[in-house]
Amino acid sequence: MGIKTGEEYIESLRNIRFKAYVDGKKIDPKDLVDHPLVRPSINAVAFTYDLCSNPDYADKLTVSSHLTGEKISVFTHIAQSPEDLERKVRALRLIQQEIGNICIMRCSSLDGLASPYSVTYDMDQDLGTDYHKRFKEFLKRVQKDDLYVTLAVTDPKGDRRLRPHEQKDPDMYLRMVDKNSKGIVVRGAKFHQSGTLASHVKIVTPTRVLSSEDKDYAIMFSVPSDAKGLIHILDRQPANHFIEGESVERELCKYSSHAGMVIFEDVFIPWEDVYMCGEYQYTGSLISRFGHYHRCTYGGCFPGQSDVIIGAAAALAESHGVEKDPSIQDKLLEMIYLSEVMFSCGIACAHLGFKTPSGACFPDPILSNVLKLNIAKAPYEIARLAEDIAGGNMITIPPESNLRNPEIKPLIDKYFKGAEGTPTEDRIKLFTYLNLTLLGGERGSLSGVFGSTCGAAGPYQAAKVHLRKMVDLEEKKKIARRASGILK
Amino acid sequence: MGIKTGEEYIESLRNIRFKAYVDGKKIDPKDLVDHPLVRPSINAVAFTYDLCSNPDYADKLTVSSHLTGEKISVFTHIAQSPEDLERKVRALRLIQQEIGNICIMRCSSLDGLASPYSVTYDMDQDLGTDYHKRFKEFLKRVQKDDLYVTLAVTDPKGDRRLRPHEQKDPDMYLRMVDKNSKGIVVRGAKFHQSGTLASHVKIVTPTRVLSSEDKDYAIMFSVPSDAKGLIHILDRQPANHFIEGESVERELCKYSSHAGMVIFEDVFIPWEDVYMCGEYQYTGSLISRFGHYHRCTYGGCFPGQSDVIIGAAAALAESHGVEKDPSIQDKLLEMIYLSEVMFSCGIACAHLGFKTPSGACFPDPILSNVLKLNIAKAPYEIARLAEDIAGGNMITIPPESNLRNPEIKPLIDKYFKGAEGTPTEDRIKLFTYLNLTLLGGERGSLSGVFGSTCGAAGPYQAAKVHLRKMVDLEEKKKIARRASGILK
Amino acid sequence: MGIKTGEEYIESLRNIRFKAYVDGKKIDPKDLVDHPLVRPSINAVAFTYDLCSNPDYADKLTVSSHLTGEKISVFTHIAQSPEDLERKVRALRLIQQEIGNICIMRCSSLDGLASPYSVTYDMDQDLGTDYHKRFKEFLKRVQKDDLYVTLAVTDPKGDRRLRPHEQKDPDMYLRMVDKNSKGIVVRGAKFHQSGTLASHVKIVTPTRVLSSEDKDYAIMFSVPSDAKGLIHILDRQPANHFIEGESVERELCKYSSHAGMVIFEDVFIPWEDVYMCGEYQYTGSLISRFGHYHRCTYGGCFPGQSDVIIGAAAALAESHGVEKDPSIQDKLLEMIYLSEVMFSCGIACAHLGFKTPSGACFPDPILSNVLKLNIAKAPYEIARLAEDIAGGNMITIPPESNLRNPEIKPLIDKYFKGAEGTPTEDRIKLFTYLNLTLLGGERGSLSGVFGSTCGAAGPYQAAKVHLRKMVDLEEKKKIARRASGILK
Amino acid sequence: MGIKTGEEYIESLRNIRFKAYVDGKKIDPKDLVDHPLVRPSINAVAFTYDLCSNPDYADKLTVSSHLTGEKISVFTHIAQSPEDLERKVRALRLIQQEIGNICIMRCSSLDGLASPYSVTYDMDQDLGTDYHKRFKEFLKRVQKDDLYVTLAVTDPKGDRRLRPHEQKDPDMYLRMVDKNSKGIVVRGAKFHQSGTLASHVKIVTPTRVLSSEDKDYAIMFSVPSDAKGLIHILDRQPANHFIEGESVERELCKYSSHAGMVIFEDVFIPWEDVYMCGEYQYTGSLISRFGHYHRCTYGGCFPGQSDVIIGAAAALAESHGVEKDPSIQDKLLEMIYLSEVMFSCGIACAHLGFKTPSGACFPDPILSNVLKLNIAKAPYEIARLAEDIAGGNMITIPPESNLRNPEIKPLIDKYFKGAEGTPTEDRIKLFTYLNLTLLGGERGSLSGVFGSTCGAAGPYQAAKVHLRKMVDLEEKKKIARRASGILK
Repeated sequence: MGIKTGEEYIESLRNIRFKAYVDGKKIDPKDLVDHPLVRPSINAVAFTYDLCSNPDYADKLTVSSHLTGEKISVFTHIAQSPEDLERKVRALRLIQQEIGNICIMRCSSLDGLASPYSVTYDMDQDLGTDYHKRFKEFLKRVQKDDLYVTLAVTDPKGDRRLRPHEQKDPDMYLRMVDKNSKGIVVRGAKFHQSGTLASHVKIVTPTRVLSSEDKDYAIMFSVPSDAKGLIHILDRQPANHFIEGESVERELCKYSSHAGMVIFEDVFIPWEDVYMCGEYQYTGSLISRFGHYHRCTYGGCFPGQSDVIIGAAAALAESHGVEKDPSIQDKLLEMIYLSEVMFSCGIACAHLGFKTPSGACFPDPILSNVLKLNIAKAPYEIARLAEDIAGGNMITIPPESNLRNPEIKPLIDKYFKGAEGTPTEDRIKLFTYLNLTLLGGERGSLSGVFGSTCGAAGPYQAAKVHLRKMVDLEEKKKIARRASGILK
Repeated sequence: MGIKTGEEYIESLRNIRFKAYVDGKKIDPKDLVDHPLVRPSINAVAFTYDLCSNPDYADKLTVSSHLTGEKISVFTHIAQSPEDLERKVRALRLIQQEIGNICIMRCSSLDGLASPYSVTYDMDQDLGTDYHKRFKEFLKRVQKDDLYVTLAVTDPKGDRRLRPHEQKDPDMYLRMVDKNSKGIVVRGAKFHQSGTLASHVKIVTPTRVLSSEDKDYAIMFSVPSDAKGLIHILDRQPANHFIEGESVERELCKYSSHAGMVIFEDVFIPWEDVYMCGEYQYTGSLISRFGHYHRCTYGGCFPGQSDVIIGAAAALAESHGVEKDPSIQDKLLEMIYLSEVMFSCGIACAHLGFKTPSGACFPDPILSNVLKLNIAKAPYEIARLAEDIAGGNMITIPPESNLRNPEIKPLIDKYFKGAEGTPTEDRIKLFTYLNLTLLGGERGSLSGVFGSTCGAAGPYQAAKVHLRKMVDLEEKKKIARRASGILK
Repeated sequence: MGIKTGEEYIESLRNIRFKAYVDGKKIDPKDLVDHPLVRPSINAVAFTYDLCSNPDYADKLTVSSHLTGEKISVFTHIAQSPEDLERKVRALRLIQQEIGNICIMRCSSLDGLASPYSVTYDMDQDLGTDYHKRFKEFLKRVQKDDLYVTLAVTDPKGDRRLRPHEQKDPDMYLRMVDKNSKGIVVRGAKFHQSGTLASHVKIVTPTRVLSSEDKDYAIMFSVPSDAKGLIHILDRQPANHFIEGESVERELCKYSSHAGMVIFEDVFIPWEDVYMCGEYQYTGSLISRFGHYHRCTYGGCFPGQSDVIIGAAAALAESHGVEKDPSIQDKLLEMIYLSEVMFSCGIACAHLGFKTPSGACFPDPILSNVLKLNIAKAPYEIARLAEDIAGGNMITIPPESNLRNPEIKPLIDKYFKGAEGTPTEDRIKLFTYLNLTLLGGERGSLSGVFGSTCGAAGPYQAAKVHLRKMVDLEEKKKIARRASGILK
Repeated sequence: MGIKTGEEYIESLRNIRFKAYVDGKKIDPKDLVDHPLVRPSINAVAFTYDLCSNPDYADKLTVSSHLTGEKISVFTHIAQSPEDLERKVRALRLIQQEIGNICIMRCSSLDGLASPYSVTYDMDQDLGTDYHKRFKEFLKRVQKDDLYVTLAVTDPKGDRRLRPHEQKDPDMYLRMVDKNSKGIVVRGAKFHQSGTLASHVKIVTPTRVLSSEDKDYAIMFSVPSDAKGLIHILDRQPANHFIEGESVERELCKYSSHAGMVIFEDVFIPWEDVYMCGEYQYTGSLISRFGHYHRCTYGGCFPGQSDVIIGAAAALAESHGVEKDPSIQDKLLEMIYLSEVMFSCGIACAHLGFKTPSGACFPDPILSNVLKLNIAKAPYEIARLAEDIAGGNMITIPPESNLRNPEIKPLIDKYFKGAEGTPTEDRIKLFTYLNLTLLGGERGSLSGVFGSTCGAAGPYQAAKVHLRKMVDLEEKKKIARRASGILK
């Protein structure tokens, strides 16, 4: 058992009987793993399995389970200390550098376990329930089988001004529609499910703080990806399925990422998989802890993505013969600056993390929201600078297919070469890489700088709202009144 | 004669025997107009022909030729006054609003005629040549036949630290390799040729200021698109050829844009089409006048593009039920602010335009560079704000194809609907539109906010260099020395 | 008569019997003009009188009155065309360059006349009143005697959530407390009165849009600065009164600016000076027209201020020997860019101005608010860049007094000299100039970049609110719906 | 012994016979401590002595000396661990909150000791010198007597393009002019000496990396503030000496800060105080370690300053009755965001600190430069937002002296009151506080947001240059070449 290789992970997926629609068509489960619109995402997840099972990365990507003491991947671990959080930040930066700027989608798994773990502990302590015991059993299984769990949070929401029970259609938020001695029956949908067609199991939680009138919406549970009534609808995947034959695009699109909508058509959940059922008072801490834990991750993931972009811009500047120009150097340093500020925010919120009663450790709540606000803007500026350095050829690339046509190859080679030893083919690859990463959609809806930053840990405004709750303006006013001579 | 309709324009293209490579394959000229990777761009240009020949737009998109007095399209006119320049700015904003955020590529035509016109005039006055006379004949033909001319400026450049004659391969800049009593023979290549496979004829000019050692590179001429020795290589067109059947993507990709590399394999140019041949001293004003004239255009084109993006963001906010939220309103106003600053810069540089001896009017040189610096940053911020308002669903859209599968349509309709009357289908269209415009590449390499801003009128740094030449720092120092009591 | 010289203006002020408190003490009116905290501001206004009466500036700073045809200063003119508005923008830029970055306070006069002029015209047309006739008489007097009029708008406002009649103290907005056959009696206060102790007369208008319940607050009138019951309280003037003897500070503080609070203790206004009395429906256009007219001015004033700052930064860089460094050049160009964008906005909103029925011409409403948003941010960035170029010595200047002590002068000369011919004394002057302009308060509460930008034409948010009213989001939505294939 | 109180510190200064010029006049040493232009700065330093000797702050502001085990102030401690660095960051934030946004100048002491300590250790190890032994003796004395040491780094530099020995005047950088068995004789000057007239002793180091030709400039030593030949010239102190009598200004100017130029007129330094003498190869690490150590400090100091400004803005918004307005809330959160990013950078560079062979611990070199770039911009934005919230009254404050004139007090009270219970006097204090902090110069040349950020740890460009040295672009290129399929 223990940590799976990429190959083992892929094989394990073949046993799951997904009900899935891809581009408007229902796909036979046995074809799903190899479907051209799905496989590249599975490859990306498999890449993380390979890295974690690679002994060279053991010190950076594996830990001892606090439950069993066995060696597990960082992706199934619950942080027990600020050091664990910091390891997570560094692991994500490393993986992004290794895979080259592809959303690996597995942070949803990484970050989805800690908050349920800690909140069920609090519930059991306060209420005498046994949710935490159940969740621990689930977690042991996840760790033992090295499962890829995705976290299902976001509901459709309908009219966003209305609370769940006020909606015209009560299913706009996922809810319990029945309950018996064996378990509960749930109905609704979850949006933005990164990696959902590559995951073994889902954890489902509410998406907002709920009140007593919304009790039936206060449910949390785990559910295997092929539970009866679960329907997956793959999100729009712009273009990677059309890529055929030998090509740089095909090579670059070996890895991709996806998200999907998951619909729950009266799905039955047995009690042992239910971790909250009506305890709406705990939805606040459940959601905010998840948010902080997840935001922290971006302090590693975005700097790692930026490392690749900065490197590509520098390599292109070198091939133009202008790498030493002061204006180019200044832009590269600006990109590095922006990237390292994100990393600083990641390190700081991890290092100032705090322990919850369950033992799980969470990042500093103020600084993790500050990080989120940062990563919502910096990538745009990094992209702008990369495009400015790369220049117009990033958008007007002679297709690499020309190099495979002997009629035209010599002319392309002649005219598209740069200053240095960089061969024309390598220049085309670097331009194509940046184009796909910064402008294109071929690598999947979540990849690319903008895809990532849009989706990362919810909207900008949400982080502001969280921040507002966390900061103590009254204390700051007191400080100012003292400073201005009002208070002595 | 006079102004062509879109249909007439498309038919006229069928007579041109382009030598062209698309995705590594040579295309038979008779198939080119209908090639799935080329036709959408031709549609975009045809759209501008249709608008100009539409009587409802006559006051905005047509003028009287200053040469013949006949009614011509703004796209073949040489501005004779600041009012003409301002009309150009407004025309571009209007067209972008009408076609919806597609680079129409025709501004290269619009902006490529004035600088040769005015500089050949100066040359004839100074040197007794008859370049201007020849150019005027060419221009009359362009106006009479309503031709789409593209301007070919950018050379491959090789090692960018070296001047043309210093390059290891002398063809890194296009040059005259032979000359006789009939004309000249030219060799080299031009990059970033927007709309090149949709144009009747090209004007070719140097790309940088040249000195006496680079005399053979100081050549300017016009050349029909099917001249012997001209080879077109269509740039990478990410994905639009894969779109088949009925779909919102297909509908949205009816229009597109393209660029290409054009290679000159010892092309013969008869003297009557040559407008400069060795007069390197005029390359400075030729290039800088083109730059200012072209930059001014962006003061209309980018605000027009932004109008559509702002509208889409507002429509989505409305369909979420959050349009009135102060944070949404603030973001929409920020977008409008950014857009109107670009427009203000466009109006100001047009209004402060100045007449050259030829009668052609050019925008203010300082303010047109200021405009360029502005449009190089603002669109990123506008895109960021649009994505922030649209939210995660812009990257995780249930494909519209699901609506055509009755098994799944009811569930998509149920869960993807928003607050207001906006039908699910319209929401999917708006999300898809923004995705294609801001993140995707399906609409062609030049379209989308980032494609446009990258390529627009050359690199950011070039505008700074131009600006440096134009501003009088010594005068400002004098003002400061007076202000600080040093000068009395 | 006609345009006064500076000296004539100063003499004319001596006849006004101001009731004024300076630094907590009542000042004898005969001492006010020469009071060390007031005189520098009067000098600044006198400077504008001198320029306007200087024949060398006649084409830029004088016009023909549209009422009398006589030559008048731009400061008493009502713009009759976009050209007039543009002249205003250029005049302000010129004056700032000449006086060196001092708020001349006279734009309140310049901009305060047009809105009452045009709105009283509308009222007379609609209501049969004779307000416009009265106002025209007033204006003729202002033009004939070349008076400095200040515009009194901003009320104390008390609790800003409440409308005037809802306030606990009804005097939180200035109001009519009595009325008889001779005239009206008014009570209240006006804040932020730039140049109030240097002006002959005030025009008083409401500060917000009023409804029928606030009828008594809907009053507009003119009042001489020494009317009975008018009390002036000079605002905090940081430090210029302490400067004595020969010094660069004294030289630099020859000009200054001030603002003050003006209290109306039951002031009687005869009917011939009353221009609105209860017609609350006109307060909306009165205020918004004033806002647009005034905002436009900043398109000249801030670029002019920036010219001096840019020049000082360049001169200091030169004296450090680093003017040619790419990073210095880049910062100077960035400053120029920011400054010229403000100018572009000024020119654009002037050029797109529109005529009201009265004949008075007003700037484009959208673009003038866009300009305001721009000038609320750019000066901070310009200041930051200037400080970055000037370096630490801008805050740690050896006082110029040392140069007048022979013991220490040689050491200062030895160690504080720079690279070039710039003498130590000139370096100290440039550093001191920038320090006073960017960091210090000695030149009066309104001067300095930050003072100006804070106060300029009301708060940032107000411009956003105006902008919101002006822009047509529905039209933009329609455009987007067409672009995304929803509307055909 | 041990930690001094503020009073003890002030008394200890009275024994120092400074040779000092203030505002061009030589001051008798016995009058210096109480001179109105110097005392407020001494008060600020005394404030830090009082806090450190206050038992309530012992856990935050004191540590055990690693040399003697005795309790010492954080200001004389050499960090032995990342925890020590983090304590420094927190200590500075705390002190800024307590003193209210006054530059306490003592970080020069705090940060000036570690780099000489570690570099002398390396020198002794490599070269067999006994510099570290001497320095340790010096440090023990500093800790025992709780001395305020200032670090003298910045030379006049003359023509900045030239190295020290290339300057026309060889004294443009401080140098050894003589040497004998007793010690060395030094000549030159040091600029920007924060707190120099409040310090017991100075450590003098080179300001740039030196080569063998500049050997005589490679000197480091300590020198008492009243050594023969030392001349202090107090920098321009805008206005605080004029403030007399009871006033809010006087109250707010109780604390201030100063800097000065220190001239070395052939000063003799005995060998036991010399810590480098010609070993130019060590100047690189000496300077860069100092830079990193010092930059880290700003991660505490600027957030602490921001806390007060944010509090003042919030208190004023409250008193206007608009604290809950979404646009106000958004601005306050933006300020908090900017402030906490600086704090995150401080925590991160401290936490990732590394130990040198001497045992002294230094912050992460990349992240400390990233922090510096951050604090060079964020304070301007914080100031802009504070001014935007405070509004025009921040620049047009009725002077508080009016409240002491019974004639006018009732009117000020009536009209200047706000919405809530905040008394008029408190509103005036808050406005005055913000005015002095953000716009004014009365609190000394280094205080105020802009003063601080200008001077903080050298110019922006220097941090970029450092960053350039530290980052490994080749590694990033390799990553990108792998990602784009060039390297396998």
